[in-house]
Amino acid sequence: MAKKYVYTFGNMAAEGDAAMKNLLGGKGANLAQMSLLKLPVPAGFTITTECCSDYYSRGCELPKELMSQVWEGMANIENIMDAKYGDKDNPLLVSCRSGARISMPGMMDTVLNIGLCSETIPGLIKQTNNERFVYDSYRRLIMMYADVVMEKAEGLPPADGEGIRKLLDNRLDSYKKEHSYKSDTDLTTEDLKLLSEEFKQIVADKLKVAFPDDAKEQLIGSIKAVFKSWMGDKAVSYRRIEKIPEDWGTAVNVQAMVFGNMGEDSATGVAFTRDPANGENRFYGEWLINAQGEDVVAGIRTPNPLNNETKNKRNENMLSLQEAMPIVYKELCNVRDTLEHWYHDMLDIEFTIQHKKLYMLQCRVGKRTGYAAVKMAMDMFHEGLIDEKTVILRVSPTQLDELLHPIFDSKQEKEKKVIGNGLPAGPGAACGKIALSSKQAVKYSAKGEHCILVREETNPEDVEGMRAADGIFTAQGGMTSHAALVARGWGKCCIVGSEDLEINNSTKEIRIGEKTFKEGDVISLNGTKGCVYEGELKMVPSSDNVIFKEFMELVSKYPTINVETNADNPVDTKQALEFGAKGTGLFRIEHMFYGEDSEVPLSIMRKMILSDADAERKHFLDELLPYMKASVKSTLKIMSGHPVTIRLMDPPLHEFTPHDEKQQEALAKEMDISLTEIKERIEALREVNPMMGIRGVRLGILYPAISEIQFRALFESEAEARAEGFDPHLEIMIPLTVSVRELNHQRAICDRVHAEVEKKTKSKINFKFGTMIEIPRATMIADKIAETVDFFSFGTNDLTQMTFGFSRDDVNAILAEYTAQKILRYDPFQSIDLSGVGKLIKLAVESGRRANPDLRIGVCGEHGGDAQSVKFFYECGIDYVSCSPFRVPLARLAAAQAAIEKWW
Amino acid sequence: MAKKYVYTFGNMAAEGDAAMKNLLGGKGANLAQMSLLKLPVPAGFTITTECCSDYYSRGCELPKELMSQVWEGMANIENIMDAKYGDKDNPLLVSCRSGARISMPGMMDTVLNIGLCSETIPGLIKQTNNERFVYDSYRRLIMMYADVVMEKAEGLPPADGEGIRKLLDNRLDSYKKEHSYKSDTDLTTEDLKLLSEEFKQIVADKLKVAFPDDAKEQLIGSIKAVFKSWMGDKAVSYRRIEKIPEDWGTAVNVQAMVFGNMGEDSATGVAFTRDPANGENRFYGEWLINAQGEDVVAGIRTPNPLNNETKNKRNENMLSLQEAMPIVYKELCNVRDTLEHWYHDMLDIEFTIQHKKLYMLQCRVGKRTGYAAVKMAMDMFHEGLIDEKTVILRVSPTQLDELLHPIFDSKQEKEKKVIGNGLPAGPGAACGKIALSSKQAVKYSAKGEHCILVREETNPEDVEGMRAADGIFTAQGGMTSHAALVARGWGKCCIVGSEDLEINNSTKEIRIGEKTFKEGDVISLNGTKGCVYEGELKMVPSSDNVIFKEFMELVSKYPTINVETNADNPVDTKQALEFGAKGTGLFRIEHMFYGEDSEVPLSIMRKMILSDADAERKHFLDELLPYMKASVKSTLKIMSGHPVTIRLMDPPLHEFTPHDEKQQEALAKEMDISLTEIKERIEALREVNPMMGIRGVRLGILYPAISEIQFRALFESEAEARAEGFDPHLEIMIPLTVSVRELNHQRAICDRVHAEVEKKTKSKINFKFGTMIEIPRATMIADKIAETVDFFSFGTNDLTQMTFGFSRDDVNAILAEYTAQKILRYDPFQSIDLSGVGKLIKLAVESGRRANPDLRIGVCGEHGGDAQSVKFFYECGIDYVSCSPFRVPLARLAAAQAAIEKWW
Repeated sequence: MAKKYVYTFGNMAAEGDAAMKNLLGGKGANLAQMSLLKLPVPAGFTITTECCSDYYSRGCELPKELMSQVWEGMANIENIMDAKYGDKDNPLLVSCRSGARISMPGMMDTVLNIGLCSETIPGLIKQTNNERFVYDSYRRLIMMYADVVMEKAEGLPPADGEGIRKLLDNRLDSYKKEHSYKSDTDLTTEDLKLLSEEFKQIVADKLKVAFPDDAKEQLIGSIKAVFKSWMGDKAVSYRRIEKIPEDWGTAVNVQAMVFGNMGEDSATGVAFTRDPANGENRFYGEWLINAQGEDVVAGIRTPNPLNNETKNKRNENMLSLQEAMPIVYKELCNVRDTLEHWYHDMLDIEFTIQHKKLYMLQCRVGKRTGYAAVKMAMDMFHEGLIDEKTVILRVSPTQLDELLHPIFDSKQEKEKKVIGNGLPAGPGAACGKIALSSKQAVKYSAKGEHCILVREETNPEDVEGMRAADGIFTAQGGMTSHAALVARGWGKCCIVGSEDLEINNSTKEIRIGEKTFKEGDVISLNGTKGCVYEGELKMVPSSDNVIFKEFMELVSKYPTINVETNADNPVDTKQALEFGAKGTGLFRIEHMFYGEDSEVPLSIMRKMILSDADAERKHFLDELLPYMKASVKSTLKIMSGHPVTIRLMDPPLHEFTPHDEKQQEALAKEMDISLTEIKERIEALREVNPMMGIRGVRLGILYPAISEIQFRALFESEAEARAEGFDPHLEIMIPLTVSVRELNHQRAICDRVHAEVEKKTKSKINFKFGTMIEIPRATMIADKIAETVDFFSFGTNDLTQMTFGFSRDDVNAILAEYTAQKILRYDPFQSIDLSGVGKLIKLAVESGRRANPDLRIGVCGEHGGDAQSVKFFYECGIDYVSCSPFRVPLARLAAAQAAIEKWW
Repeated sequence: MAKKYVYTFGNMAAEGDAAMKNLLGGKGANLAQMSLLKLPVPAGFTITTECCSDYYSRGCELPKELMSQVWEGMANIENIMDAKYGDKDNPLLVSCRSGARISMPGMMDTVLNIGLCSETIPGLIKQTNNERFVYDSYRRLIMMYADVVMEKAEGLPPADGEGIRKLLDNRLDSYKKEHSYKSDTDLTTEDLKLLSEEFKQIVADKLKVAFPDDAKEQLIGSIKAVFKSWMGDKAVSYRRIEKIPEDWGTAVNVQAMVFGNMGEDSATGVAFTRDPANGENRFYGEWLINAQGEDVVAGIRTPNPLNNETKNKRNENMLSLQEAMPIVYKELCNVRDTLEHWYHDMLDIEFTIQHKKLYMLQCRVGKRTGYAAVKMAMDMFHEGLIDEKTVILRVSPTQLDELLHPIFDSKQEKEKKVIGNGLPAGPGAACGKIALSSKQAVKYSAKGEHCILVREETNPEDVEGMRAADGIFTAQGGMTSHAALVARGWGKCCIVGSEDLEINNSTKEIRIGEKTFKEGDVISLNGTKGCVYEGELKMVPSSDNVIFKEFMELVSKYPTINVETNADNPVDTKQALEFGAKGTGLFRIEHMFYGEDSEVPLSIMRKMILSDADAERKHFLDELLPYMKASVKSTLKIMSGHPVTIRLMDPPLHEFTPHDEKQQEALAKEMDISLTEIKERIEALREVNPMMGIRGVRLGILYPAISEIQFRALFESEAEARAEGFDPHLEIMIPLTVSVRELNHQRAICDRVHAEVEKKTKSKINFKFGTMIEIPRATMIADKIAETVDFFSFGTNDLTQMTFGFSRDDVNAILAEYTAQKILRYDPFQSIDLSGVGKLIKLAVESGRRANPDLRIGVCGEHGGDAQSVKFFYECGIDYVSCSPFRVPLARLAAAQAAIEKWW
């Protein structure tokens, strides 16, 4: 039996439904579902994603059995719509759109008005009694088809440097200028007729192939073109960012055309069933009279508001749909209710009104900001639309992370002058250098500089730059424009449609209100309010909101892997506790030498390192003791009742030595030796590959006194904190272990100092002893390690380094190329590499647990805060992850989701 | 039941035998065996090594049940020897010696003459009628016991800075001076009586404890002291070098004393059943009249030759045992035959003659030079003493390696004047700076400088320095002295007993013949001939000998793991073929830029690397092509018929750039850019951790043109070599792989170039495609890699680096400390680390074979030439190892041995 490639929908019936996304794509499945829900969907059919895979596996040939099924599908549409494709008298026109499992807005191609040709034009004119409309549709078809099908899909040589689309656009512009027309609507029927003929001539001249005047040929070409666009540059680059597998493929939706551009009683619009920016439960959308769908999304005209309650400053004088067509608006509100009650989620819909009749062209779960995601989930929970577990699964860890993104310091912001306004399309705050092109934004970002992408409007070609920028600022477009959609999807700060913004690309200057800026100047965006400022504003965390706390309370009802924090100072530790951390999984003792208040201890540390006699070294270590104690004790006290895992000194000593000559001179003076001598001693510490040199436990073996002083500081801190009435849970962690004997060596020092301090302080000091597993060899001997420790914790940063042989300090150039060339699907320093590093971790967990069933196993490294990785760690049976304070909620959410997905 | 700790022997019976080495130690097992063979062994017993372990696990306490067994053993000795321990009238004296599983000459302690005290002295005098002998034995007991038992084992505070032994020695010397005595034999009975009393006084004064005057106490003290000496500094350091496990422990042998110092009809000697230096089948030994055993080994007196045929220049005028005591000599020759026929090996024996009666005190398999090992094995094979497999197992890979050690260029040596002569104790050649102390030798060696340790005589305190030195040269001692034994064990060049050598330790000067040298001056030793030269002589390989070839022919009868070579030039490749390499397992393409004739290609390479445009880079790559081809083609032709595995360029590009300003300036001029620009480009290539940076396959992905030119060179070389009538077997190997997609990326380029070259040369070009497995991640995905390649080869150097996180460039300081502190038992860069790296290799071999049963698996890295590692690789099921040409025979031998041990 032949494969079923075609699934029909329309007339309140459908062969598919919303559950069939993998086969029909998101758009196709939802069109079918809307049909089943008896909503007004123009008839059509979906060609499956499987067909797309077959198309590619045949070397870009359509499967043989496809076309007969397509013509059957077309017959079904003809039946329902009571028109005939390619017919002289009563012609049917169709659209052809892509639709992958997951929405990839604007990334793939669409062809509208398919079926218009010399044969069918007269019939359509007669039927619609609207010759202008028909020729407007025709010239649009030529423009799209020549671009999407002929040039891109069929690979016809692009005309002189520029694409055919640009050539036709230019001709349209010049024609308008010649006739002093301001807008497309000024074009007369005769103009459009002439232009259509001229366009066909340009196509034939430039592409050396005539525009097809055959309806069947147009349909086949369009289907192929949509399949082909799955591998287009934009789509490939988007999938890389979004980690969408290439083998998913896209479906193709062929659907009867309905026209929002049939006059003043026609319209087109997009809407969200709730506000996607702040999550409020109000119907939010935009529409344009006498337009086709693409016009709204492209941001060419500023759209009208959907209803009165969502009008804003910029559009308060424009007619809402509620005012203009109250009956249609009412009908649309009913659609909204039907959809939300069926989908139990906020939806993003597209509609067209043709002669006051409403048609639904698309519905999908809408993208939203992190704040809106949490707000909607909680609201729907309270409304009884969704249950507790769904609330938790509904918010992605990234959205939660975004919710906690910093905002501007409100005091400073109040004092600053707002220099421009726009629509608040992506909330949060961003400061950075003005970048006028996607390329420039990528450049800034590669150098580690913050930047704001400033554009007239954005289009799919800009995605790389939008990704790289900290914020996006456009002159054109509404809340549903490309820029707004993409920014929201990524949780990026974004302001669109600012009438205060003027861009001069030739001088590389912009004006915002009264002010002129050059590319590279710094501005600040408040995406929550839509305000722009000159220069840089101070940012503060934005964790203090009720909805977040309410949500996290639900999360904590699903206990799973424990979340602890990587924190080395009181501020971070307190923050992490507020975010629900259940301990400190990584306290890096050397962090006392960085940051504020570190000057004195750093100077002692340097003298210690550069001592050339053991006695001298010992003297400076003794001097360090009080600083170490102060640092450790404060955390033990704040984390009272929870474990605090303190890692002994880790970095290569060379890292602490002063590198500029002035500091070296000062140090030489203090140490009473010559500058040459200091330089020689610093040089002696230099290593060819410091990452694999004398660091971690190796320091403690080569210089046992360094370990000794740390043990002393820890035990004395424990004793003092306990004496002051706290409940310290001290855990000591040895870094960079490769053998059990290293642990025994350190343990012997540890036990001796422990006995000494217990005797001196006359108190019982509890502690646990463990190690990092961060070198491949340690994973291989995890069973033997497990027998001698109370816990171990994977240092996934170092483990990833050594497992790949990627130096973190040098890897950027390699990773950029490797991900660009798809040699790696993602950055293994961000998400744990399952086939390599993950396998080592699994082996180590299994053999460690077998050897010591009481072993506590954790992860401390960047991956502890990565949702995908946390899920993997949970499945491995790891007890806790530790991450930076601001990632604690994210990790807790990911952990709860992992548990819910696995057990409920 | 109590453990059996004591095994008796003597009177042609024994409780143990030669097979019980692990329990009785080598000495004990062989004493028992000699007793069983009815040889004249003084009665005794052995306390087991198990008792030693129990002693240590009880915190250095003898097990309770031991002493009753000891006294039973003593009763057995008394019975046989017809004397009584501690008896007034007929006292028995015993010795107490260590004896581990493996001989550790001079590393542990011995006490002789135990049982002499005020109670027993008169009886012994009466019995022997030799008062002088008794007091000489007594003063020796005091000296040994005070040192070994009281000071070292019982830990009594050492006297004023120096050890008690030194104090007593000093007193002996001063006493001799006071009386103008030249030799110990000048001391009269009265002198020895006085000295004994004085010695006891010194002991009591300095150690604050009286010398024990009780026979039982002496025996218990001595047993404990021998156990204790297992953990002495010397023993620990020796075990580290020899990789002897600490938990083996030592046995203790208590044996009736027989005396070689009872007058002119008494003697002591050591002998080898064949010549240990050259392997010839002649009885070789040395003896001293009227002496105790230690005198021969200590090298205090120059010993007499055993027989006439082995007399040499230095001792040709001395009486041989054959001349002095022909009957005893005859008896000894019979012992020699008995032992060789029972042990089927060359033995090292110790004997004592007391009043013309022969006693055997020890026999063990004798240490020998590499040359002697091969010679003896082949001789014994021809004599029918051993079979073929035993021949192969008899020679250790290290001995074979030693056999191939370089010798001096004979032409140059002939022209040079011999400035001194000595005994040729360790064959081979060595040049280096004169080091007058062990410490200085270690210092030179640490700096990578060659050195010769020059000493009056060596003692066990010198082992570290002997290890570090390239050669050893002493003024005292014979062929069986400490220096000679140790040097031979290690295959080191050594000349002993040179009468031409005078050392002045206060001026740090030495005289050799007429010439004076300072410490640090360079001399050369020919250890095969015993000649010394001034300055440095050129060395050449010494592979051209008949016995070696004969031996290797036997080896090749036991085919097992294949041995290939790491060679990048014609000279090395030819050498490897001569040594029996079955192909080139690693040809490093970048080696064309090192060494001779590399100037032009290196300069092109530098320009290529520092190009900043792809076109420019391509131009220089094209220029490189002919050089690459010349290099590759010559090897393909020499290795015609065997696989040649060519690894694509591996090192970080920065390694090729010029580092001194002059070269940079020249390059700038050539490239027509500024020096600043050159410096900037060089700087841009610098990496923080180059070992984990842009190298290996990463180069080929970032700069595909670099891979392309290599593929082109390889294919064109293949085609041309084939056209010239050769049979090239080209294998292409991608380095540093971490993912299958890297391989696919390179394979695509490879296949394209392959097609182009086939077309251009109109020939069919065969090749295999494979990869290195040298990054931990690659071992984890070995199954997936195996599916896409024809072969893979473990790069164990890099794999060890990454698995341990040890940078080879920086690791020396760490490894030194780690092996010193026993955190690592051996250097994992020399012998494969079984628990970590080995485990990864095993996992990868298993999963690779499962995925692709036809996969060819190899190892190329230093470990391919390490015998222990080769055995492991064989057991893993690896198909071939590849090593440097001079290690090929060694690897072949190790592989054959592994196969014989496993299957026969």
